[in-house]
Amino acid sequence: MKAFDPWSSKQIDNKKVFKEFGLKKFPEAWRKELNHYLFERNIVIGHRDFEKVLNCVREKRPFINMTGIASSGRLHLGHKAIIDLFMFFKNCGARNYFCVADLEGYTSRAQVENLEQAKELAVNNLAHVLAFGIEESEAYAQSNYKIRYYSFVFEISKKITKNAFEATYGHVDLGKMSAALLQYADILHAQLPEFEGKMPSITPIALDQDPHARITHDVAKRLHYDLELPSFLYISHQSGLLQGTKMSSSNPESAIFLDDMPEDLHVKVSNAFTGGRETAALQRKLGGKPDICKVCELLRFHYPDTREVERIMNECRKGTRLCGETKSFAIEFFTKFLKEHQKKAKDKEKSARRIVYGK
Amino acid sequence: MKAFDPWSSKQIDNKKVFKEFGLKKFPEAWRKELNHYLFERNIVIGHRDFEKVLNCVREKRPFINMTGIASSGRLHLGHKAIIDLFMFFKNCGARNYFCVADLEGYTSRAQVENLEQAKELAVNNLAHVLAFGIEESEAYAQSNYKIRYYSFVFEISKKITKNAFEATYGHVDLGKMSAALLQYADILHAQLPEFEGKMPSITPIALDQDPHARITHDVAKRLHYDLELPSFLYISHQSGLLQGTKMSSSNPESAIFLDDMPEDLHVKVSNAFTGGRETAALQRKLGGKPDICKVCELLRFHYPDTREVERIMNECRKGTRLCGETKSFAIEFFTKFLKEHQKKAKDKEKSARRIVYGK
Repeated sequence: MKAFDPWSSKQIDNKKVFKEFGLKKFPEAWRKELNHYLFERNIVIGHRDFEKVLNCVREKRPFINMTGIASSGRLHLGHKAIIDLFMFFKNCGARNYFCVADLEGYTSRAQVENLEQAKELAVNNLAHVLAFGIEESEAYAQSNYKIRYYSFVFEISKKITKNAFEATYGHVDLGKMSAALLQYADILHAQLPEFEGKMPSITPIALDQDPHARITHDVAKRLHYDLELPSFLYISHQSGLLQGTKMSSSNPESAIFLDDMPEDLHVKVSNAFTGGRETAALQRKLGGKPDICKVCELLRFHYPDTREVERIMNECRKGTRLCGETKSFAIEFFTKFLKEHQKKAKDKEKSARRIVYGK
Repeated sequence: MKAFDPWSSKQIDNKKVFKEFGLKKFPEAWRKELNHYLFERNIVIGHRDFEKVLNCVREKRPFINMTGIASSGRLHLGHKAIIDLFMFFKNCGARNYFCVADLEGYTSRAQVENLEQAKELAVNNLAHVLAFGIEESEAYAQSNYKIRYYSFVFEISKKITKNAFEATYGHVDLGKMSAALLQYADILHAQLPEFEGKMPSITPIALDQDPHARITHDVAKRLHYDLELPSFLYISHQSGLLQGTKMSSSNPESAIFLDDMPEDLHVKVSNAFTGGRETAALQRKLGGKPDICKVCELLRFHYPDTREVERIMNECRKGTRLCGETKSFAIEFFTKFLKEHQKKAKDKEKSARRIVYGK
């Protein structure tokens, strides 16, 4: 499974973070047991206290499935892993809380200029989220949620000293502090008596968000409510389509957005960085490098059939497959995928608007 | 009117604050025009932009009447001036917003240990507030208000740099920061389109709260909403009954609480610091010092008839009246006042509970 090794590009950094903060690698046995592409393909790379949630899954006991996406632009394929993981736990029988963090997007990002813009972005994002199979009742926008959630944000604020906060994040503005407080509340509030009560919870985050996880643990212990410490899964970020880039809405050439048109998709995949050789002849002779190829990464993160992805990458490695062929394959797959997805998202717009503006 | 000069005890400090921060003394002409004991007796000592509100009062145009009390204990007579002032502007035809700041009490005060306690204090405080004639629809608790208010708190957080915040308050914890953000929202939110829209507003504060007023002004300018800069009145604090004390719930011997029993009242007024001489004979000869007498201060802040208060203080000054007589007069008045007030407060408990726990 070397093709799916997420440790390849940033091996040293990740190992350091894992050791320093007590994260654990996601065990092979669990990958097999859970039988889902995100685990099989090492997109889930680590965990904190996942045992508790796994036991709930095995014993069909309730647990909280809590995911948030910061809403500060259009959603792209990089968000899909988080949504797919949410759907996985939903299908395991979880109590579901999908948060579109529009207040966080507004308070922590300069490009979101006002609350109206934040809320319209939330409508857009939610329509896509619902299109993946999440129900209206399972999703919320931070700007239009229950009063109990807001009072909880303020309760949390009392439990964090400024020294602890600054030791974790450095010197940050009040907007970013608010964003952090909202995140802690997102992760913990479903365990309040007014929601589900005490039970294990699972939230996927990227490695660089681990400071939030550590403070959330600390807060959960200090609050006078009886709370289970939340569990976390650590997700490998999908990188951008161009060399050395992140897939992020601030880098539109490098991201495939869920509302991209077929022509956008065609241009972006065609221009993507691959592991191809200088000439076709050389590639046939030496083989390609699928492990650094962005088109292969797209397939690894999104193509449903694991064996087919392995086959494509192996053919590339052996030199029997050229980049153009893989690009055409990807364009065909994602054109169909986006078309179907966008139709569903269109149907969910009213529902998304109710979440953001309704009572 | 020397008997009512609030500048007496802290003259230098107040003058310095007024000059440094651009506050203005409350003009004599307005005191006469407004014809209310809080103005007549110099309990309102200064203002920021009160002209705008006064013009609304004169021309019967709408303005916002916004007052908050931090809910961290039982209410005492020191709170009554603020409530009386609110009733004054209410009777001038204002749009009324009375905030019981239970979240602020919780996040900023160690003695409020959890949200339940904060909410029960809010019920207690609100029952007293309503007993003074404020309607259920005119009052709110921070912990159970409209969603739009909470999203506004977070909008405000983006508009304050940490440097500006720390320059004003020094190094404070996240709980106190939250409390401050809630205060700014309390003062400004009623001007949002979802509430009254842009109009002048008046909020009474103590001199030591002026930093809040200055940041609120700054925030009002930075937000992308069209807001009138809020106006403020500066209120002289009633001092405690014992020498050198504040009237505060953390100093119960020095405060008369709105739910004190007649026997508590009797003990507290009897033990109050007066401006009496060492012996009755000496007092008859030299006269008392009503300007430093806590019993006279009680009457000055609460006895409805200004001429009667002046008469008592003048008799004291001339030596024709002894402290015991003034104490008996005060005990009689406040016993009756508290009894009637407590009956009304009892009748308002259900209504207060609806504000704190209802939808």
